[in-house]
Amino acid sequence: MTFLIIFGGSSFEHEISIVSAITLKDKIKKHNLKFVFVDANRNFYLINKENMKSKYFANGEYKKATKLEITKGGFKYQKGFFKKDIFVEFEVAVNLIHGRDGEDGKIPGMLEFFDIKAITPNIEASVLSYNKVLTKDFAKLRGVEVIDYEIITKPKTKFVFPIIIKPARLGSSIGVSVVKSQDEFNYAFDVAREFDDLIIVEPFIKGIEEYNLAGCLADDWIFSKVEKVEKKEFLDFEKKYMDFARKESETNEIEKNLIEKLKENFKKIYKDEFENALIRCDFFYKDGIIYLNEINPIPGSMANYLFDDFDNVLENLAKNLKKEKEIKIDYEYINKIQMAKGK
Amino acid sequence: MTFLIIFGGSSFEHEISIVSAITLKDKIKKHNLKFVFVDANRNFYLINKENMKSKYFANGEYKKATKLEITKGGFKYQKGFFKKDIFVEFEVAVNLIHGRDGEDGKIPGMLEFFDIKAITPNIEASVLSYNKVLTKDFAKLRGVEVIDYEIITKPKTKFVFPIIIKPARLGSSIGVSVVKSQDEFNYAFDVAREFDDLIIVEPFIKGIEEYNLAGCLADDWIFSKVEKVEKKEFLDFEKKYMDFARKESETNEIEKNLIEKLKENFKKIYKDEFENALIRCDFFYKDGIIYLNEINPIPGSMANYLFDDFDNVLENLAKNLKKEKEIKIDYEYINKIQMAKGK
Repeated sequence: MTFLIIFGGSSFEHEISIVSAITLKDKIKKHNLKFVFVDANRNFYLINKENMKSKYFANGEYKKATKLEITKGGFKYQKGFFKKDIFVEFEVAVNLIHGRDGEDGKIPGMLEFFDIKAITPNIEASVLSYNKVLTKDFAKLRGVEVIDYEIITKPKTKFVFPIIIKPARLGSSIGVSVVKSQDEFNYAFDVAREFDDLIIVEPFIKGIEEYNLAGCLADDWIFSKVEKVEKKEFLDFEKKYMDFARKESETNEIEKNLIEKLKENFKKIYKDEFENALIRCDFFYKDGIIYLNEINPIPGSMANYLFDDFDNVLENLAKNLKKEKEIKIDYEYINKIQMAKGK
Repeated sequence: MTFLIIFGGSSFEHEISIVSAITLKDKIKKHNLKFVFVDANRNFYLINKENMKSKYFANGEYKKATKLEITKGGFKYQKGFFKKDIFVEFEVAVNLIHGRDGEDGKIPGMLEFFDIKAITPNIEASVLSYNKVLTKDFAKLRGVEVIDYEIITKPKTKFVFPIIIKPARLGSSIGVSVVKSQDEFNYAFDVAREFDDLIIVEPFIKGIEEYNLAGCLADDWIFSKVEKVEKKEFLDFEKKYMDFARKESETNEIEKNLIEKLKENFKKIYKDEFENALIRCDFFYKDGIIYLNEINPIPGSMANYLFDDFDNVLENLAKNLKKEKEIKIDYEYINKIQMAKGK
């Protein structure tokens, strides 16, 4: 199949998305890939495969690539003196924009509006996973436990330290701090406020374990290996992404029973909400209880490293994408009014 | 000012949106209006003001109008042999698409993506008001009461009748039924299922009063008159919209104290979530308690009939629109990797 990878975006994770796309270029072997880059100013560019190198974007060379417009069914550009419309050919698009644009609903909405078949969370799923307050509420509604939290609107005292302070609407641990004392609090609050006006605080629970599980519903449920996240105190943005030697999963060391429970919780979250997306759920585990930490509706490099046959996962999902409900518009109501008016 | 009214959409309320736009054409006197129609297939058309008649859309004549493409900053078409780009000139767009596309986040996301200044709910606000389950959760989070509900996934028994059955994701009372007995239930359930897979049931509370209040936060809070909705048992879609003689508000008959309480509840819902939108909150009132029924983030004809000086409200809001946070992308992270690699 031919996949069109859409990456970049006006997002704090713009650069992560570029790295994600470059990684996929190497990891996807069976399928043909094309690349659409969304630059910081939200222009679309068609990027040749051989130019898929991080430097090409960092130094602005990408501006020489063919500029595209989004339109019904896909992307196009105009060629030659007669400005002939040329459409980029592909079968299924992949929304690989992390953070704003990709995960806040903008690109998902545009893909649906322009009737572009795509592996992507839909708008509602995006909004629910983008805002941590909504994620927690949604998880509770689905019968999945979450860590308690408090919304804070201004610096305040009387926390039981240590706590974690997070901007509500960002992924990749950006703007997140572990705070151990009131002294540290104000600075951490200001850092978080740089990224969002909605700030939440959670207790920092010592000795809590973290497990990641990716998957999707294609012709049937597909689950990745379970990744146990080994970390020191806390992985911040830089550590998380600069660390190329991040430990891979060793599912066989994890209890079968726990894996089954993680899958059950994953299904509760995914079902009827994340269809058409390949997501990664990050869970906490302590004293026999599984908590949802966050939903990554577009995980880094699509969490390909957690799957044994990623080519196949992608193809299976692509072949089982669900379409938006059709709405028939017959002007029955306006015709009735016209009749009533005797016109 | 020149406003660009965007209406139509692939929505069960497509025709309502046309009527809304035609109504605004007559109600807005001080400002210049232009019109962009989104047809059932999601093509954009620039509609001449003199063609703003419902028949023009119902009989397909609109297809002769100039087709537009959405692009950075607005809408454009190409003119003449040399296909010169012509941009539609306006100052502020108004998202007037009710239901899908307008209120589910698609058009709001596109307007933000393409940096088009607009009176519209944003994506998150759209999703929260589009899905009634999320609306109720959100209201509770904000300290506003709602009527209890139950999500039902298949026909079941054991309700205490009468109940109201609603598809979760539609406005304008479409697919909503009042059910008085188990006999009526299955049919009503099937009707609702035609519109959404997510169905909710609420108790039907006799003698509950309904009050609508529209408003926005511009340079300061702007509130409409309070409309007391006089209805028989229940206004379904047809009754609600075919009834041109719908009773207008008579605020002076409503207790001052109640009006103040409604405004307080409106503010709790609107603040930091519905900015840039002119919304109408529909409240219930019984035994001294105010309940949020639903949020209309794009009310019919912008609820203009509830305002004394609608031209002024629109202008005030348009002049106080908030822009999306800017994100600076400096390729610091990629440059670090390049450095680390020694390239």
